[in-house]
Amino acid sequence: VLARTYDDQTCSIARALEVVGERWTLLLLRDVMLGLRRFDELRESLGVTRTVLSRRLAWMVDEGLLERRRYSERPERFEYWPTDKATELWPVLAHLLMWGDRHYPEPEGPPRLLEHAGCGGRVDRRLRCERCGRELEGEDVVMRDGPALTATRG
Amino acid sequence: VLARTYDDQTCSIARALEVVGERWTLLLLRDVMLGLRRFDELRESLGVTRTVLSRRLAWMVDEGLLERRRYSERPERFEYWPTDKATELWPVLAHLLMWGDRHYPEPEGPPRLLEHAGCGGRVDRRLRCERCGRELEGEDVVMRDGPALTATRG
Repeated sequence: VLARTYDDQTCSIARALEVVGERWTLLLLRDVMLGLRRFDELRESLGVTRTVLSRRLAWMVDEGLLERRRYSERPERFEYWPTDKATELWPVLAHLLMWGDRHYPEPEGPPRLLEHAGCGGRVDRRLRCERCGRELEGEDVVMRDGPALTATRG
Repeated sequence: VLARTYDDQTCSIARALEVVGERWTLLLLRDVMLGLRRFDELRESLGVTRTVLSRRLAWMVDEGLLERRRYSERPERFEYWPTDKATELWPVLAHLLMWGDRHYPEPEGPPRLLEHAGCGGRVDRRLRCERCGRELEGEDVVMRDGPALTATRG
């Protein structure tokens, strides 16, 4: 999907942005981090057409960010699971979230919370649990709806 | 420049990506982190036309990411300095860099290095200095050319 516009640049940031430098890529990664796996769940979350979503999912499978797993044979249906390569991007999402919370706060509080699974502590800028101090990895962290979203949904 | 495509989404990640979700924004931030300040330096680094760069810089000034400072009166010329709001995005760039280094390595080694200024230690995933252990902030960190870039430039 993305042309290597910055092909003459020897730079890992530029290279990373060739893969995740479109907003929808990071929003799809956010959704799989939120636990959405199925086509219709993702489509509803992102508000895009079936064609657009199919193309994006196929591209992310090709790039090794998502793995397709069949969960139904008739009709044939697939779930999309994040690979390790994708999960390793969680700090990028975490820092975008913290920056967004800080500079564009919602009156009701943060829309999403990043928490240490099981413990319930929030994630700090050092990717540690604010409650127990543990240094967190992608598999330790869950994202869930925060006050602003709960308020919106009533 | 960016439409609020995800306006119906109450999400700080989506909101952050409305501001920095185009590749060129993060690449411009990388360049100002590298110490580039002047129009022609930025244009050379990014390989874009004057018109495109002017528009992007104006947009980033409007969004409060860059500050315009006059350094010459005749002819009138400006430098572009990152604001605190922009500098706070350094962890996003740092994690994109680490992810890019890991998944798209260059044979000569990393193109850019993130270092603790003065100390020279590398920055780890917890945004600490690998050498002295200090927890780093944006102002403690410098980005400089690494082996792959030095090799390319001969």
